[in-house]
Amino acid sequence: MNSHSALFQQRLKSHAEVVEATLADLLSPDLRTGETARPERLMAAIRHGVLNGGKRLRPFLVMESAALLGDRFACAALRVGAALECVHCYSLVHDDLPAMDDDDLRRGQPTVHIAFDEAAAILAGDSLLTLAFDILAAPETALADRAKIELVLSLARAAGIGGMVGGQVLDLAAEKTPPDEAGIVTLQAMKTGALIRFACEAGAIIADADGATRDRLRRYGETIGLAFQLADDLLDLTADTQTMGKATGKDAARGKGTLVSLKGQEWAENRLNELVGEAEGLLAPFGERANILVETARFIANRRS
Amino acid sequence: MNSHSALFQQRLKSHAEVVEATLADLLSPDLRTGETARPERLMAAIRHGVLNGGKRLRPFLVMESAALLGDRFACAALRVGAALECVHCYSLVHDDLPAMDDDDLRRGQPTVHIAFDEAAAILAGDSLLTLAFDILAAPETALADRAKIELVLSLARAAGIGGMVGGQVLDLAAEKTPPDEAGIVTLQAMKTGALIRFACEAGAIIADADGATRDRLRRYGETIGLAFQLADDLLDLTADTQTMGKATGKDAARGKGTLVSLKGQEWAENRLNELVGEAEGLLAPFGERANILVETARFIANRRS
Repeated sequence: MNSHSALFQQRLKSHAEVVEATLADLLSPDLRTGETARPERLMAAIRHGVLNGGKRLRPFLVMESAALLGDRFACAALRVGAALECVHCYSLVHDDLPAMDDDDLRRGQPTVHIAFDEAAAILAGDSLLTLAFDILAAPETALADRAKIELVLSLARAAGIGGMVGGQVLDLAAEKTPPDEAGIVTLQAMKTGALIRFACEAGAIIADADGATRDRLRRYGETIGLAFQLADDLLDLTADTQTMGKATGKDAARGKGTLVSLKGQEWAENRLNELVGEAEGLLAPFGERANILVETARFIANRRS
Repeated sequence: MNSHSALFQQRLKSHAEVVEATLADLLSPDLRTGETARPERLMAAIRHGVLNGGKRLRPFLVMESAALLGDRFACAALRVGAALECVHCYSLVHDDLPAMDDDDLRRGQPTVHIAFDEAAAILAGDSLLTLAFDILAAPETALADRAKIELVLSLARAAGIGGMVGGQVLDLAAEKTPPDEAGIVTLQAMKTGALIRFACEAGAIIADADGATRDRLRRYGETIGLAFQLADDLLDLTADTQTMGKATGKDAARGKGTLVSLKGQEWAENRLNELVGEAEGLLAPFGERANILVETARFIANRRS
């Protein structure tokens, strides 16, 4: 492990801790935003779905892409990151429902509809999606109104019909009719790519960066989004190969085509190296300051868990 | 029918038509907000859940509360009203799900999870909630950034944990443990009151009105929200009394206490008259311009369908 990698690991861990604490505050059962108390069981279901010790990769990307452009955006980036994590967690809670992916476990814990019930899981997800926009717009997020509006709009588009939700629809359809290569690329860019891209672009919006910088961070986000998905597909294949003694994993079992299953493991590994190279190229103009984001791209491409 | 009432009916109808057309545009399957197409089946499910010829009372309230303060806010108010209707429709689609109220029919048509499937209904609802914030923040909504941020924040709070979603949680819990009078008032203020209050307050935000005006419209919204719920409870009771030949309706059958079941029909009718009087008092300073909103309060209190 080189020194950049060690620094990255340390920052990933420390950012995750502060994000966890921020989320715990925002999801406090005692917090009041108006005259009405927060229903106790709803808050328990929401907290179960969010406060589970995740890596908090998306908030990390918001925080580091903002830090790339200056030190004074840390507090705002933390709140934007927390809002984004609420959207990510809402999508997991809804995706786990019986009518969707029907998963009973997440991170070794019962999913929300198992620990509570289906209604609680639906409403916890709805609450988290709504809360994300509350957090972005709230006075406590110390940003200019223009930046807030850009964040609201970008997040709504990344999470909505042309982004994450649309991608989930295509993903469910893919179980019945396997898409071709172009279809898989579109599906993945929407389902997982859009939020990761938003995370990186958010740093530029928070820092009120010029258009070229924003475009560069947006493309960096797209690139590591592709790497994230490819590494995920590879992991699904290789983890199952080793542990289950068969050549196809969960995706294949569900009939989902992936680029790895279409084009092979070697192609995927080469493509991952290429994507890391592209990410480095996009970050080159930022010099030393970008070391952490370069390391992030490597981590995403090489992760084996 | 007096002339104010006739004018009200005509405006309710014409506003509903323009809202319907605006929603149909916003939910066009061909519309693109980025590089990706809108998934066809998702759009069909969303359109099924929204374009059903509803009264569009909430957009009407946004449009009329803005019109009270000037004529130049009409376009912005229409878009804000459409965003609010997306939130209202998302809540109906999710509330109808088997895990929630389990309703097969709405307005005589199969509900979204019946016409499509449960996954489609969950994702259609998620899409509509997300789209509402997209519409508010989009450049096409011609408002100052500050007004947009206030609308995003107010809508998120009206729809979220301390508002509509929280109210739905309390409502589901009320089927098991009937709440007392204070509990019913809180539940109803959250579940149906919050969005109606937002609708009226939105007019003041759109028109950048002073604090006193905003407060007045907010209180008007609270007042007609109470009347709306009371009329609904009365309707549930009397409609069933006449058609089913029994004294208790759907709410009572589900074990839900209402203020009408606690305090009786006569009390409810007196209280409705009182609320209309309060609404008139709140609108008095606006003079003639407020005739339509006065008529709206009467319509809400007296509606029998």
